[in-house]
Amino acid sequence: MKNKKEENFNEWFNEVINENELVDDRYNVKGFIIYREWCAQSLKKMYNIYENALNEKDHKPLFMPIVIPEENFFKEAEHVQGFTPEVFWVTEHGDGEKLEKRLALRPTSETAFYQMYSLWIRSHNDLPYKRYQSGSVYRYETKATRPFLRGREFFWIETHCAYPNEKSAREHIQEDMETTKEVIGDIFGIPFIFFKRPRWDKFAGAVDTFAADTITSNGKFLQTATTHYLGTRFAKAFDVKYKTETGTDELAHLTCYGPGMTRIYGTIVAVHSDNKGLRLPFDIAPTQIVIVPILIKGKEEEVLKKATEILTNLKKAGYSVELDDKQKSPGEKFFMWEMKGVPIRIDIGPKDIENNQVAIFRRDLNTKEFVKETDLQKTIEKIETEFTKNLKSQAEKTFATQIVPVNSMVELEKVIKENKIGKAPFCSIDDDDGEKAAEEIKDKTGAEVRGADLVEKQKPNEKCIVSGKPATCYVYIGKSY
Amino acid sequence: MKNKKEENFNEWFNEVINENELVDDRYNVKGFIIYREWCAQSLKKMYNIYENALNEKDHKPLFMPIVIPEENFFKEAEHVQGFTPEVFWVTEHGDGEKLEKRLALRPTSETAFYQMYSLWIRSHNDLPYKRYQSGSVYRYETKATRPFLRGREFFWIETHCAYPNEKSAREHIQEDMETTKEVIGDIFGIPFIFFKRPRWDKFAGAVDTFAADTITSNGKFLQTATTHYLGTRFAKAFDVKYKTETGTDELAHLTCYGPGMTRIYGTIVAVHSDNKGLRLPFDIAPTQIVIVPILIKGKEEEVLKKATEILTNLKKAGYSVELDDKQKSPGEKFFMWEMKGVPIRIDIGPKDIENNQVAIFRRDLNTKEFVKETDLQKTIEKIETEFTKNLKSQAEKTFATQIVPVNSMVELEKVIKENKIGKAPFCSIDDDDGEKAAEEIKDKTGAEVRGADLVEKQKPNEKCIVSGKPATCYVYIGKSY
Repeated sequence: MKNKKEENFNEWFNEVINENELVDDRYNVKGFIIYREWCAQSLKKMYNIYENALNEKDHKPLFMPIVIPEENFFKEAEHVQGFTPEVFWVTEHGDGEKLEKRLALRPTSETAFYQMYSLWIRSHNDLPYKRYQSGSVYRYETKATRPFLRGREFFWIETHCAYPNEKSAREHIQEDMETTKEVIGDIFGIPFIFFKRPRWDKFAGAVDTFAADTITSNGKFLQTATTHYLGTRFAKAFDVKYKTETGTDELAHLTCYGPGMTRIYGTIVAVHSDNKGLRLPFDIAPTQIVIVPILIKGKEEEVLKKATEILTNLKKAGYSVELDDKQKSPGEKFFMWEMKGVPIRIDIGPKDIENNQVAIFRRDLNTKEFVKETDLQKTIEKIETEFTKNLKSQAEKTFATQIVPVNSMVELEKVIKENKIGKAPFCSIDDDDGEKAAEEIKDKTGAEVRGADLVEKQKPNEKCIVSGKPATCYVYIGKSY
Repeated sequence: MKNKKEENFNEWFNEVINENELVDDRYNVKGFIIYREWCAQSLKKMYNIYENALNEKDHKPLFMPIVIPEENFFKEAEHVQGFTPEVFWVTEHGDGEKLEKRLALRPTSETAFYQMYSLWIRSHNDLPYKRYQSGSVYRYETKATRPFLRGREFFWIETHCAYPNEKSAREHIQEDMETTKEVIGDIFGIPFIFFKRPRWDKFAGAVDTFAADTITSNGKFLQTATTHYLGTRFAKAFDVKYKTETGTDELAHLTCYGPGMTRIYGTIVAVHSDNKGLRLPFDIAPTQIVIVPILIKGKEEEVLKKATEILTNLKKAGYSVELDDKQKSPGEKFFMWEMKGVPIRIDIGPKDIENNQVAIFRRDLNTKEFVKETDLQKTIEKIETEFTKNLKSQAEKTFATQIVPVNSMVELEKVIKENKIGKAPFCSIDDDDGEKAAEEIKDKTGAEVRGADLVEKQKPNEKCIVSGKPATCYVYIGKSY
């Protein structure tokens, strides 16, 4: 790695991606890239983990069409306004014959799901109605694209749930946040804050938008997942009603949740990787353990036999293991597997066999230790439980240092100039005054009011750093990917 | 079920699909349907099983873009001729602004993969190069659509492999056939024949096409997967070359393989289901075992406790189990779960508890037996190993009765009228005379020459039933879905 994470984050990020061939951006359609083998294997594991978490909470999968007819798309006014500029349209077939109607390549699928919910949901007995779909969505981004973080095609899961009333729907928002903590927080090891997004930065058509943002080591927000309370707006537009126990018809309250798999992968790269290259959370590494035999002339057979024995045992124990017996020096192999982010490396040579030991290199701590062969399995199990936790606690330290409490515009300007995130008491993220205050911040610092902290309440008598009015919340202010 | 499989196959097939809500065809884009919960859960299992089989054989996944620019699409002459009539084109974005170039919604991805192979494959050391992608493809079908069997969007896997020469590429075709046997044959329990397709019915751009066709109980072919030897045609068009050991540049020999997940699911419905409804192979059933407690007044608690205990134990053993404690009669529940195709049902009531037994209904044989509770796990394991084998052997019997050897056009016409498949000695599937003979068959019977049997060789001196020339192969002749 030529670039260092601390010195030039963007160059370093691109280098981790390029050296590991995670994507190929030479595909000849602007904004469309290929997710290559090493990355694709992890993406598949991430999908499985996320789908299992949703299944556990009684969501069921659907395979929905990728095209949405324009008449659906135009049904909810705010939604269409927000998304139309970004839509790709399918208009022709064959030798250029026009289709009867234009079809949107789905930028998100509310307008496909809810017309069906209108048919599928009949009674209060059908609620809650919890469904999800895994797939790709399409948005004609005009800003510069960046692998994983912004493109015209990305891979995600979207859930769409219907509840009988606001209370139960808002409880579901809490459930989505729990799922985010379990998967993105614990299994992928990413620290984040859940924000309520300002009124002027909500999902088009939502009543409220909540987002899990992490912060990179160069002080930028990175959104990983959002969950939206849609109220009854889409239900009205698509006639999603249910019969109550007393026989009346009521509109369903809808929610949707969108963890972005390719975006989360990019976040994993940004947050966990270091100056040696990629570091992958244990559960999503395509290869969790690599075995490197140290081949010394005359002892090759003995070493390979032992290495194969270890390989077989670890495979039996359920790990993804690889034996690297290629014709390269151990040094080259160490370099490559560390760069690729394999969590555990086992080195074994003739001396180790003599001493009934192996060397274990762990990528969470970048340390090497010798372990008795009889303790190998136990040690691996121990590292497995510690690995992602260690990645996370390292990331949490960085995360915490990026946030600086500020109490005035002067302080905020200084913090933003230093490429950090400012945390400030703020008048309101839900009214015109707040919107004006956020515009002022944007003009003076170039940074955005990202949203209100859901947990921490401001102290009494604190004033908004812009308007001087009584503060109603803490907001986080900074630049974002 | 109103219709019987034996009496009206098509009506029965639609009824199995509709009663189980496997799809919804009310989506408002022609030819695009929704694969619903019960079906979607199995599709996900089928994808996992297939991907694991490919991973085992050293294929690696990619996530490729869904759009292919028209300049790629037009590079291989036969391919473009075959596929252009079926392409959907993305031409606009936003408020109707034209894109710089038209983008095809991929109908298949040769022209996306191979331009990248030209960049990725450099040397003989890179070969074989084995990749796959799971996803959806788009074809503007003009024939009447039918759920699972013909639509404008379908879900499949496509593999694309590069080899140094014809011999190794053709060996890979054998490997694809092995994978088909392992997965479609054994895990999904579908009997099929591997045909070499006639020259006039090949994949557009292929040198040879091989297809795994099953035969439905109403005597029609149903294609489940195809594998194609592409020779060096696409390699020439996309400049896929490698450096040999002696330093010369050679064109790679390409193969592609396409098992269709939604089509195979339809095949499973068609082949395994019966007059009670769906029957699902054990490994892909969303619920493998359902427990129905027989609730008699005053004994509910005791029965539910025992049922929950069994549920917990079977879950621990790794099965997908459900306890159906809804407020419905046991009879209604039996009817529903049999219709949904759950492989095993366990009924337990107060009398069973007294006798330390449970009743086990198995959907492969449609029989019920009493089993000592201590033998439950062992019995389930036994049924698990037998279940899909039983489905398959039942299907094989039906399959065999659909094929009738014929030795003349008169015999063939009779067989086709009886809605069976004729098997006949034939001049050639690789020349003009054969094509003319196949046209004559089509004109006289309405049936197609589906392809040549790869295994059985004709007896000496046999003559083609159309041209009277020496036969070079046995072909199967019939109608198809």
